Amino acid sequence: MSVSKPLIFVTNDDGIFAKGIASLVEAVKPFGEVVVIAPDKPQSGMGHAITINSILRMNPSDIFGDIKAFTCSGTPVDCVKLGIYELMKRKPDLIVSGINHGDNASTNVLYSGTMSAAVEGAIEGIPSIGFSLADYHADADFSGAKIIVQKMVQSVLENQIPKGTCLNVNVPSIAASEIKGIKICRGAHAMWADFFDKRMDQFGNPYFWLSGKFEAADKTEDSDLWALEHGFASVVPIQFDMTAYQAINELKNWNIEL
Amino acid sequence: MSVSKPLIFVTNDDGIFAKGIASLVEAVKPFGEVVVIAPDKPQSGMGHAITINSILRMNPSDIFGDIKAFTCSGTPVDCVKLGIYELMKRKPDLIVSGINHGDNASTNVLYSGTMSAAVEGAIEGIPSIGFSLADYHADADFSGAKIIVQKMVQSVLENQIPKGTCLNVNVPSIAASEIKGIKICRGAHAMWADFFDKRMDQFGNPYFWLSGKFEAADKTEDSDLWALEHGFASVVPIQFDMTAYQAINELKNWNIEL
Repeated sequence: MSVSKPLIFVTNDDGIFAKGIASLVEAVKPFGEVVVIAPDKPQSGMGHAITINSILRMNPSDIFGDIKAFTCSGTPVDCVKLGIYELMKRKPDLIVSGINHGDNASTNVLYSGTMSAAVEGAIEGIPSIGFSLADYHADADFSGAKIIVQKMVQSVLENQIPKGTCLNVNVPSIAASEIKGIKICRGAHAMWADFFDKRMDQFGNPYFWLSGKFEAADKTEDSDLWALEHGFASVVPIQFDMTAYQAINELKNWNIEL
Repeated sequence: MSVSKPLIFVTNDDGIFAKGIASLVEAVKPFGEVVVIAPDKPQSGMGHAITINSILRMNPSDIFGDIKAFTCSGTPVDCVKLGIYELMKRKPDLIVSGINHGDNASTNVLYSGTMSAAVEGAIEGIPSIGFSLADYHADADFSGAKIIVQKMVQSVLENQIPKGTCLNVNVPSIAASEIKGIKICRGAHAMWADFFDKRMDQFGNPYFWLSGKFEAADKTEDSDLWALEHGFASVVPIQFDMTAYQAINELKNWNIEL
């Protein structure tokens, strides 16, 4: 009996040309057979969006040399679905998404295409990890993040991600040698204080740019934001079942009768 | 002291021209001052996507007569953000989203722009409800759903939605008189078995349509799918914190050391 190498499916939301996904491919190459399907353009902030009212394109790419790679015209979740249901002959053993340019701690999980790809993998029952570096620059230094990727991939291949969950891994933007360790956390209770930059176009009509500041009120030691600020990589288990079980009994007391 | 009427913010994902949002506006009108900000085109399947790499447009619309209404060029979550941070002078007392053409039970919450608008409202600390009818046709009959909307809005204005949650309300596609009641549920553990319809364009290049069948393996009596199939409207509390708290200790046993 021959044991085949783990099949590792790589995607992201910054698009196939981002430095982050190249770093991720390099980091996971030693662990198995790697296949990449990534968006053909940036898809940041696409959350769990899927393409249902339009078509998808998927084309081979030689961007990673001997690594099998494809571009997809859709969202990160489209990439995962195309990979699983159209492209791959067998179910991947692992899905890794990222490495995102910019952190995805706290409630950013909801907006993040990187994390939504991992959440989609979890729905499919595939061990899935989203990786993000707390540096949104195009030329960010991923050397520390690559070490964390390898440590986490090793751990996930040896252990088993708890059922119904995927992992949200964030890496601080510091030198690799300065990363203090990997901390298991919960997502901090924090949110964006948004504002809109209202401008006028050349015809005198208004348009709006979404902008904002992430307000991190919650900085207790078990949160991912605390870990990142104190030099640790954070690992948060994320579940796709959004039911608020603890609220069910309270609602039953409302006695809503027709 | 004058008590102002509740400010009710209406949005959806099927777009401002959909029958579902017109039905929702009619249903909530008696409860307060209504303001609508809805996508200018269908945004189904957009999940929690936000527009960050492009601009947003917002324009007044007289589609609902004397009800203040605006179209937005972005996603349902963009609509919520624009409404709260740009348009409204005071914080809305209630956000209602829908009525969606097609149900959003189970894991469909993740893909649903209708529900993501409600989740965004919950992040902002505003009581929020997403409504969906299990009929995706453009001319669906919303008369039963309107009764459920009024019952739920009344209940939410009288009670308090548990902190950190919003409500996912689904209505079966049956005559209003046949709806047996409103059941508090959990989201069923079910998912899409996707497939892609691969076709060739006029140049001989392949393209793909996402398609699939919702596989409802989980039909226990406390699930939303059970309720819908048995003639009840389902109400599931949805939380925006996706941390899998029950998995944290298990992960801590992995002992991941750098």
